[in-house]
Amino acid sequence: MAFENKRARSLRIAYIGGGSRGWAWGFMKDLAMDGDMEGEVRLYDIDQEAAKRNEIIGGRISAHPNALSRWSYNTASSLKNALTGADFVVISILPGTFKEMRCDVHEPEKFGIYQSVGDSTGPGGLMRALRTIPMFVEIAEAVKAFCPEAWVINYTNPMSLCINTLYEIFPGIKAFGCCHEVFGTQKLLCSMLADQCGIEGAGREQIKTNVLGINHFTWFDKASFEGIDLFPIYHEFSEKYYNTGFTKDKDDNWMNSSFNSSHRVKLDLFRRYGLIAAAGDRHLAEFMPPWYLKDPETAQSWKFGLTTVDWREKDLEEKLDRSRRLAKGEEEIELSGSGEEGHLLIKALLGLGDMISNVNIPNLGQIPNLPLGAVVETNALFRYDYIAPVFAGEMPDNVLALTMPHVINQKNILKAAINCDPSLAFSAFMNDPLVKLLPEEGKALFKSMIEGTAAFLPDKWKRHI
Amino acid sequence: MAFENKRARSLRIAYIGGGSRGWAWGFMKDLAMDGDMEGEVRLYDIDQEAAKRNEIIGGRISAHPNALSRWSYNTASSLKNALTGADFVVISILPGTFKEMRCDVHEPEKFGIYQSVGDSTGPGGLMRALRTIPMFVEIAEAVKAFCPEAWVINYTNPMSLCINTLYEIFPGIKAFGCCHEVFGTQKLLCSMLADQCGIEGAGREQIKTNVLGINHFTWFDKASFEGIDLFPIYHEFSEKYYNTGFTKDKDDNWMNSSFNSSHRVKLDLFRRYGLIAAAGDRHLAEFMPPWYLKDPETAQSWKFGLTTVDWREKDLEEKLDRSRRLAKGEEEIELSGSGEEGHLLIKALLGLGDMISNVNIPNLGQIPNLPLGAVVETNALFRYDYIAPVFAGEMPDNVLALTMPHVINQKNILKAAINCDPSLAFSAFMNDPLVKLLPEEGKALFKSMIEGTAAFLPDKWKRHI
Amino acid sequence: MAFENKRARSLRIAYIGGGSRGWAWGFMKDLAMDGDMEGEVRLYDIDQEAAKRNEIIGGRISAHPNALSRWSYNTASSLKNALTGADFVVISILPGTFKEMRCDVHEPEKFGIYQSVGDSTGPGGLMRALRTIPMFVEIAEAVKAFCPEAWVINYTNPMSLCINTLYEIFPGIKAFGCCHEVFGTQKLLCSMLADQCGIEGAGREQIKTNVLGINHFTWFDKASFEGIDLFPIYHEFSEKYYNTGFTKDKDDNWMNSSFNSSHRVKLDLFRRYGLIAAAGDRHLAEFMPPWYLKDPETAQSWKFGLTTVDWREKDLEEKLDRSRRLAKGEEEIELSGSGEEGHLLIKALLGLGDMISNVNIPNLGQIPNLPLGAVVETNALFRYDYIAPVFAGEMPDNVLALTMPHVINQKNILKAAINCDPSLAFSAFMNDPLVKLLPEEGKALFKSMIEGTAAFLPDKWKRHI
Amino acid sequence: MAFENKRARSLRIAYIGGGSRGWAWGFMKDLAMDGDMEGEVRLYDIDQEAAKRNEIIGGRISAHPNALSRWSYNTASSLKNALTGADFVVISILPGTFKEMRCDVHEPEKFGIYQSVGDSTGPGGLMRALRTIPMFVEIAEAVKAFCPEAWVINYTNPMSLCINTLYEIFPGIKAFGCCHEVFGTQKLLCSMLADQCGIEGAGREQIKTNVLGINHFTWFDKASFEGIDLFPIYHEFSEKYYNTGFTKDKDDNWMNSSFNSSHRVKLDLFRRYGLIAAAGDRHLAEFMPPWYLKDPETAQSWKFGLTTVDWREKDLEEKLDRSRRLAKGEEEIELSGSGEEGHLLIKALLGLGDMISNVNIPNLGQIPNLPLGAVVETNALFRYDYIAPVFAGEMPDNVLALTMPHVINQKNILKAAINCDPSLAFSAFMNDPLVKLLPEEGKALFKSMIEGTAAFLPDKWKRHI
Repeated sequence: MAFENKRARSLRIAYIGGGSRGWAWGFMKDLAMDGDMEGEVRLYDIDQEAAKRNEIIGGRISAHPNALSRWSYNTASSLKNALTGADFVVISILPGTFKEMRCDVHEPEKFGIYQSVGDSTGPGGLMRALRTIPMFVEIAEAVKAFCPEAWVINYTNPMSLCINTLYEIFPGIKAFGCCHEVFGTQKLLCSMLADQCGIEGAGREQIKTNVLGINHFTWFDKASFEGIDLFPIYHEFSEKYYNTGFTKDKDDNWMNSSFNSSHRVKLDLFRRYGLIAAAGDRHLAEFMPPWYLKDPETAQSWKFGLTTVDWREKDLEEKLDRSRRLAKGEEEIELSGSGEEGHLLIKALLGLGDMISNVNIPNLGQIPNLPLGAVVETNALFRYDYIAPVFAGEMPDNVLALTMPHVINQKNILKAAINCDPSLAFSAFMNDPLVKLLPEEGKALFKSMIEGTAAFLPDKWKRHI
Repeated sequence: MAFENKRARSLRIAYIGGGSRGWAWGFMKDLAMDGDMEGEVRLYDIDQEAAKRNEIIGGRISAHPNALSRWSYNTASSLKNALTGADFVVISILPGTFKEMRCDVHEPEKFGIYQSVGDSTGPGGLMRALRTIPMFVEIAEAVKAFCPEAWVINYTNPMSLCINTLYEIFPGIKAFGCCHEVFGTQKLLCSMLADQCGIEGAGREQIKTNVLGINHFTWFDKASFEGIDLFPIYHEFSEKYYNTGFTKDKDDNWMNSSFNSSHRVKLDLFRRYGLIAAAGDRHLAEFMPPWYLKDPETAQSWKFGLTTVDWREKDLEEKLDRSRRLAKGEEEIELSGSGEEGHLLIKALLGLGDMISNVNIPNLGQIPNLPLGAVVETNALFRYDYIAPVFAGEMPDNVLALTMPHVINQKNILKAAINCDPSLAFSAFMNDPLVKLLPEEGKALFKSMIEGTAAFLPDKWKRHI
Repeated sequence: MAFENKRARSLRIAYIGGGSRGWAWGFMKDLAMDGDMEGEVRLYDIDQEAAKRNEIIGGRISAHPNALSRWSYNTASSLKNALTGADFVVISILPGTFKEMRCDVHEPEKFGIYQSVGDSTGPGGLMRALRTIPMFVEIAEAVKAFCPEAWVINYTNPMSLCINTLYEIFPGIKAFGCCHEVFGTQKLLCSMLADQCGIEGAGREQIKTNVLGINHFTWFDKASFEGIDLFPIYHEFSEKYYNTGFTKDKDDNWMNSSFNSSHRVKLDLFRRYGLIAAAGDRHLAEFMPPWYLKDPETAQSWKFGLTTVDWREKDLEEKLDRSRRLAKGEEEIELSGSGEEGHLLIKALLGLGDMISNVNIPNLGQIPNLPLGAVVETNALFRYDYIAPVFAGEMPDNVLALTMPHVINQKNILKAAINCDPSLAFSAFMNDPLVKLLPEEGKALFKSMIEGTAAFLPDKWKRHI
Repeated sequence: MAFENKRARSLRIAYIGGGSRGWAWGFMKDLAMDGDMEGEVRLYDIDQEAAKRNEIIGGRISAHPNALSRWSYNTASSLKNALTGADFVVISILPGTFKEMRCDVHEPEKFGIYQSVGDSTGPGGLMRALRTIPMFVEIAEAVKAFCPEAWVINYTNPMSLCINTLYEIFPGIKAFGCCHEVFGTQKLLCSMLADQCGIEGAGREQIKTNVLGINHFTWFDKASFEGIDLFPIYHEFSEKYYNTGFTKDKDDNWMNSSFNSSHRVKLDLFRRYGLIAAAGDRHLAEFMPPWYLKDPETAQSWKFGLTTVDWREKDLEEKLDRSRRLAKGEEEIELSGSGEEGHLLIKALLGLGDMISNVNIPNLGQIPNLPLGAVVETNALFRYDYIAPVFAGEMPDNVLALTMPHVINQKNILKAAINCDPSLAFSAFMNDPLVKLLPEEGKALFKSMIEGTAAFLPDKWKRHI
């Protein structure tokens, strides 16, 4: 990498999960629309064919007449090839297949446990973690070996545990996790401004929030817009829409379109705990006891959807079709921003301007009453070659009571996954707030879920199954 | 107080709850059987008549021909009179009446929540805390005003919250909480030594343990007897008796006779978590999710009893009868040790010999992964005018996961009780592992339990009911 | 305060030390040149006449044709009148007179101790602290009583101890300390860029630094400019100018003109410790052992000046003259920025845009290896009604070794000043790195310095003198 | 090792520095006089001849008619042979020769720096550390390789840095450091009891103290004897003997005979800081600024001796003579206790009875305001296979100010020694309170001292010399 007229040239970005649809395309477009950087993206994916298709699509995006910069896209044949010499590494992988995901999400339903996503917490999140952590062990070791100075940006879930694994294996890694759930809540506050105060057109970046918590179970204890404290307004807002839900903020970003909710869970949490929960209702509900997820009817009454794997499969099929059309040039490239911040954070780390944004990194004390080293989500300052968390303050004790069990569970899951320790994994499983089973029932579910994900577990697990 | 020939003379002990049966009598006998101290005990009780009866009984005990020291017993008409000039303060009160306790224990049963004791945790423990904390606020203020240098020994439950309240209100207080549950587990290890190794006659003081946890949910991570590591033996023991339970350690101390268990819960916890749980099964079961307390049949299958309030009322009646007989001289005084250590700890604090014993005090770092200030139970060194906790080490993460929710709940309950904050109290209520209700069910139970204990709540609570 | 078209109106600022020359005028001009805020400034000073003159001067500044906003200036007759209703409080006072300052600076010279400023550390800083802390006790109590929600900005030295006092007396205070020494070092880096790299015109705000340390003994462990790491360049720079000093960065701001140095101390510290010391040489030298301040010749060889009180008196006289001319309208008002950031931080706290700047506040963990609560200087995020420190990281152990003695000394000085404890004050005195005396010599100097400052000490001190 | 009738048999103790005179003989006698343990001692020394002589002397001691146990003594030809299978490891080595020690102690005198011992702190302690740490690196690696479960007892100075090295290299090591300086101060308190209160015959074990600090700069903040607070008595004692010193406690233990002082430094420290300094004056004086060590006359006026290396050489010669006589049987063995506790702590660790004693181990929080991991000296509980520090509490801030510079210096010295970093070592050198030199003078002394110890430094140092 080198600067030329304040423009970063010859930047090398490794994209692990480079066959990804959607995420990868959005990132390619964000790069193309930004005139401050140029270079090469190396796409690595265990599905080489998908990576190859993205190589073509990336090339088309970069060649778009409105593109402000030129990027070359190349498929990397190995992790080593992707990483060697990389300045930045983006990770966005699907750990396992929809078969495993089906088991994660739907197997617990046989025991009366419903999950709206199943990728971060709950029995599904735990199983996904058990198979994802070994992959991140491999990635961390490869980064250590081939590009120890590179910045690593992760988008994969379970976010907290992915980041935790990277630091556990390579403590010197410069990694962080990005998630747009906080953005969604900032957008809700923009909609609220319009609805309650008649203030139209506020951008979500103008909503200034203090972020604290863990990924997908994140909170605001401060929120303002140009000198206006948003808490009293949110209070009125929650009273007004608590029963009906609020649905005027439909998001037409493809990534979120099927995930809309009416924010009833969020408003209920505000009334109970006094903070603004800063993630989608589907995520929030899973971190709580099964108040909102007792059964599908309950979820429906709270007006949020359970994302089925059937839906995911159908969605994937459409994306695959689109992928083929885009690669063949049968569909026009439309240049539009993804709303994600990855490329902006890259620029900040290159020294092209400070950024304050929410990020998932190990706790260095930014949340003093969560354990040091636990991966937390708070604001951070992004600058030339460093990220410094912004002190977020203590979690209020009532919210801490909800959060701490997850933090401890994550630590135990990490240890269980790295050591292939089913007894510790089961103890974490039984501690999950969604799991209200007797030990013998729990054991049965745990066993069948482990079997369902076994294809992606290290061999050491096999003897326990 | 003054020393004369290495004997402490003119010691002044205030006994709050001085009308207590059983506890008070045991303490009086322990004092009488010890030749190193002499002085006055001032009995204070809101039931003055009971205190007066104990004044007579205390006099009879002190006059026993085998008594090694002489103590005078006097009823104090006020807390101020009891405390002024006191060197030591003993607190052993019943917060509320059996009416409130009936509600604590049995009201939740209507919602499918069963409790084996209901005085430390669970819905019952929480309600008991809400009415006990204001009493301890009053005691702490009185100690601060009338005997700030006195050592305060508490026996009242909920232990952790009582101690927490004393330090919250008067941070300079020299208070600690004593509990014999650890002793019971040490005795079990003695019985195990006899059963497994043929070693008879080991005293529980010879069982050296590292104690860590919170009261009634306490653990040993080290246990030895004269250079023998007891963990491998306990492992065999747990395999042998896991199914049938172990019942060869019947305790004939009156205080425990009706509370025997077969230790199946304890053995199950060992198999799951690898540590020796160091409290009676009845207590341990309540701190866990309702695995052992799903319903009365489940508890029975784990072979421990649910202590009903009916039983308590019958027990009290017998003790009242005995109290009258003892006061009238119709029953002989029998001098025998209580097995408690209160008087020994007093001697250690007077400088008459070091003691190492388990104690409940705020965490100064003795358990580094529990929050500072939380009341924890570990070993401590007792010496002339100071108690220094012995470093107990970190709780293993799997046991931490079980413990931390209670620690945070206690902090919230303390705050809720002191500020009369029903919303925070309800949030703690819903966080209790025994409470697996939907919010609206929880609300109904909470409301009826608050009403059931309202007679002993500060007026400020009234408007919330 | 209220917003009108994104402009803050009716802002109320209390200025304690409102008769100040220089500082106050700069602040008045900064306000006038900023179009985003308007309101009233209440000038409070024990020298009422000076405040009155500044009332007139402030009026003239506000009436300047180029002023972008209108501020009214009023003299307040009491602290209470100044503070009641204030949104912001600025503190910029001279604790004591030049008589005391003469003793602070010059009395130690009789014992071979030379100081270049004598207001932050060393015997002079300590004595100044002893008389300043009681004044800040009074201010803290007044803020608590009259405007507990106001933001308090301090410019007075000794900075760390002033801020520490405010928080010690009123823990809920929203106070912070601003200092321009860091700015000066950023400007030096700009000059270096020109000198070494031919990059002209860089603004000091463009120099991105990670700031850590305590006021006037502050360090950068990261520094960059538009993606260029400045450390290798500073390394070359230090080799080049170590012997001669670097003098091409003459600062023509009146506030600094007499304070120029050649940065030899700074370059020496870099060579020894590897970090960029971020304060003027005159300040840095005083925090070290007397390597640079052994005697006036040594200081001269390091090419920095000892600020004498004679100079200060002459400087004051000139300013007083100017003050009279300005008040009488005999001298034109020139509108120009002061280079200070106070007004910008006020805007950020009003919600008019985020700021990242260095600030002195209690350590919440931003420097994990300095004690919590110690007042440290790091970057912080300034936002609508809150300041959140940016995590600065641990001080390297070699620099920690230099810093920690001052941190502990400050704690002891604070305690000694609040409790009027001469024995503790003397123990801090003897611990100062500049004081290399035997106890009996130290005692003699301490005594004569206490006498020299006694006019401004609380009566309780008197009996110790 | 195995128990037989509560007696530990077949214990294996490795003695590193097994050719030592004095220390080794005392330990051998302590073992012989104790009937609870038996086994083998393997003597390892780089001076094989000395080890062989001690093998014979050990045999004679064990064969003494009054010996209560039989131990076999064998010379080990390598560290590996000594350690393999060891249950306990004793380290008592002389790092380097008297040639190096002469440089440590006397070279600084050329620069006006006087040291009374020169083995723990000051320029001498630092140099000794630089050559000792590599030896302890080797020992730690050997323990890890050959007997990772063994308990390691160190007697070598600089104590704190030796223990620190062991844990730095092998974090799982079970090591601790024993020092009798605290015992000496407890004996002084016994003498005081006789002198002030007419209480004769108190044993030093009966003096109950709370110990806090670092080795050779240790303090009591609590001290009692059978319920008597010793602080008011020590206050009177210090007033009485401050001027003349107290000399009625002559110690006739050979190990201390030449080291007597009159405790004037100790009494002066009490008057200044309010705590009882708990080490010999010769040690205490070195940790302070050169108040007591300005020059030999000053030391004499404080009535403590500077231990010259001439004296040490003469002392060694006598011991060597004695060693030959003992080995040849020309001198009778006299069985008498050494006053050390090593053998008692071994018994406690075997499970033969709890011990509370002062010990040097890494800070786990026993002194909350010293950094975690720093080696501190406090009380600890010794029990079957574990040592748990007793919470000692915070150091008062005035004493903390004296202690913290040494703690930070030790960390830097450890790092410098392990990394062979002369620049960091020099920065620690200049930070030592005894070193009041300008950098260029310091450099000259540092250089000549490094040369003086170079024979025992790793090769990597060579290129820096």
